[in-house]
Amino acid sequence: MPFSENDVLALDAVDPLARFRDAFDLPEGVIYLDGNSLGPLTKAAKRRVTETLEAEWGRGLIRSWNTAGWIDLPAKVGAKIAPLIGAAPGTVTAVDSTSINLFKVLAVALAKQPERRVILTEAGNFPTDVYIAGGLADLLDRGHEVRQVPAARLAEAMDDSVAVVMLTEVNYRIGARLDMRTLTAKAHAAGALVIWDLAHSAGAFPVDLAGACADFAVGCGYKYLNGGPGAPAFVYVAPKHPPGLKQPLHGWLGHQAPFDFAAGYQPADSIEAMRTGTPPILSMAALDAALEVFADVDLAAVKAKADRLFDIFTSILATRCPKLELLTPTEQNARGTQVSLRFPDAYPVMQALIARGVIGDFRQPDILRFGLTPLYVRHIDVWRAADILARIMESRAWDRPEFKVRAKVV
Amino acid sequence: MPFSENDVLALDAVDPLARFRDAFDLPEGVIYLDGNSLGPLTKAAKRRVTETLEAEWGRGLIRSWNTAGWIDLPAKVGAKIAPLIGAAPGTVTAVDSTSINLFKVLAVALAKQPERRVILTEAGNFPTDVYIAGGLADLLDRGHEVRQVPAARLAEAMDDSVAVVMLTEVNYRIGARLDMRTLTAKAHAAGALVIWDLAHSAGAFPVDLAGACADFAVGCGYKYLNGGPGAPAFVYVAPKHPPGLKQPLHGWLGHQAPFDFAAGYQPADSIEAMRTGTPPILSMAALDAALEVFADVDLAAVKAKADRLFDIFTSILATRCPKLELLTPTEQNARGTQVSLRFPDAYPVMQALIARGVIGDFRQPDILRFGLTPLYVRHIDVWRAADILARIMESRAWDRPEFKVRAKVV
Repeated sequence: MPFSENDVLALDAVDPLARFRDAFDLPEGVIYLDGNSLGPLTKAAKRRVTETLEAEWGRGLIRSWNTAGWIDLPAKVGAKIAPLIGAAPGTVTAVDSTSINLFKVLAVALAKQPERRVILTEAGNFPTDVYIAGGLADLLDRGHEVRQVPAARLAEAMDDSVAVVMLTEVNYRIGARLDMRTLTAKAHAAGALVIWDLAHSAGAFPVDLAGACADFAVGCGYKYLNGGPGAPAFVYVAPKHPPGLKQPLHGWLGHQAPFDFAAGYQPADSIEAMRTGTPPILSMAALDAALEVFADVDLAAVKAKADRLFDIFTSILATRCPKLELLTPTEQNARGTQVSLRFPDAYPVMQALIARGVIGDFRQPDILRFGLTPLYVRHIDVWRAADILARIMESRAWDRPEFKVRAKVV
Repeated sequence: MPFSENDVLALDAVDPLARFRDAFDLPEGVIYLDGNSLGPLTKAAKRRVTETLEAEWGRGLIRSWNTAGWIDLPAKVGAKIAPLIGAAPGTVTAVDSTSINLFKVLAVALAKQPERRVILTEAGNFPTDVYIAGGLADLLDRGHEVRQVPAARLAEAMDDSVAVVMLTEVNYRIGARLDMRTLTAKAHAAGALVIWDLAHSAGAFPVDLAGACADFAVGCGYKYLNGGPGAPAFVYVAPKHPPGLKQPLHGWLGHQAPFDFAAGYQPADSIEAMRTGTPPILSMAALDAALEVFADVDLAAVKAKADRLFDIFTSILATRCPKLELLTPTEQNARGTQVSLRFPDAYPVMQALIARGVIGDFRQPDILRFGLTPLYVRHIDVWRAADILARIMESRAWDRPEFKVRAKVV
């Protein structure tokens, strides 16, 4: 095997990111390789939610909108996310869900392109993005088409019918990463606007929205940002688009003076115009606290370690489990920080793994998916996870009826 | 004075709702008359959020989507809200914010009325409802008009141009209550569909959506339902409208099989088709727990006690503070469970009250607003609150510079 147990222990001993693991409240007996689906609890979030619950809500009551700064949390959280995704200050806010935010920016983008009717996306993009685009197209009823083409044909599909190119940087199934800079430039050359979904990017590796000249972006708070189950999402609007956009879901907290309760809507002259209703403060507080961990994280170092974890994991499996087909690109710049493996009985294999304390997830119809999240996953963890997976495959330990019963959420 | 201190203490001694106060975790030294803006922390929510945070997220991690039932929380919460608003089982789910849910049902309703262009609402409705309707009208760009008329002229304004009547049952400023049954019947007679916003109704008094034959309703989780700051909202679709509505914000969790990750959207054949993205679980858990309090609450008794609290509060002030103008209707069926008083210097008066431990709120430009929430507010509380307010008025204790500095959230 390319990496021995001693090899990986030695890597952990000199790992500059090792110190971050202590920021997390990880359960005993679990190797958690599903932080790309739900990031784990941080000690900061645990403290903070308890404080928000008991002191701010319990004792402060309504006063906490001012005294605990609840009203400014979306902007505060946005300001913490901005440097992680290459966004200028004041261009990101935390609000609603990724799906809802996508609807907002897509509606704004289409309104800027009245002569064009195509929303171009990758075939195999995360379904909700395609559903949302379809829902908006149906609502507008002006002949918009959601055109889905394979990644390799995206550039050539960018013609003068394309209003908006809507892409997820890292594919949720196979972990392949699109070239944000090149595709954005090509889209702009074709006169299209570009929206990036950073669900599997933000917090996983350096993203440079400003450098790529992206127009809009959305992303998820509960994956690599560790904001907790269903944490608020975020939205980015490039400074080249005037602040104070009138997005269609304009609610009172996007108004320039919400507490004037004015009869007419006037958008805030800032990214806060993307807000709609009252944010879920307990969930927002967890995200705000979880982001403290990122204050002195070097995302380039995170990606470098994730790449090494990838090499350890895949090299062990390549040797011992040739039947597991690696779907994720081996070229570092062509992938995010997950590993996807194909196997016909992927579902029971994953259940067998989880029963042994290695948590990844399954994606239809035959994919084993593992998130490599270097802030709390050690080299020895992925070495052991690969070893356990290999033993399951070698012994066919997955081939038991109880592992084939599908849960509601897979 | 009509009620002496002994009178109200005697009322508390025999109050059948008194036992519910123990379900709440109220701070010392505060009389909380702002539960119509943010309900207080319940002991159940405190326990539950801590468990969701530490056991479900912290130790269960991604597994809790199944093992802790996170995926079914919106339906479970909806099932608890349904009996409070006269809704049949399976017609309510908890999701997103009131504003976002209003957008969904308004879009569905307008699509059912292709020949009509007017969205009729009350002048002085909560601004975000009007903003959302305007945002949808602008997006559709088909000549829809949001027509705002005074409450007394709503019925006569229901002509054959009206596609949808969109009303908030209880006005947030003055606490006046519209006649849901009569207005719904008149709207239907005119061929319009009806959406009710129950923000200041749900949990405050008995609501009978089914009896009134309402088409759609939305409402708020963080006011009378005590779900916590920014708690998820709810949405109701009457059984007469086929389940599986394709609302425009259709995201993956509204799909009939979300984890198939199918390329095409197929709405769930249930109220869950109103879902969009991933719900904020910490906030949802708080709402779910808070609703346990309502399991054996008689909302008719709640309204009856609120009416008595109203009488105690307003009779004291009518005697001692004639300059405070009562804006809320004195007829019991014509109001919800808040009291609104007008005074030119309402803002500093409210600050002086809060400084003395009586928490209500201020609404532009000159309104003192108090929520009467019988599950945790005693007769003696409103008696003392009225006495403190009267003393402030009598001594002009509000007339100090520090009470005139406006906070960000008022």
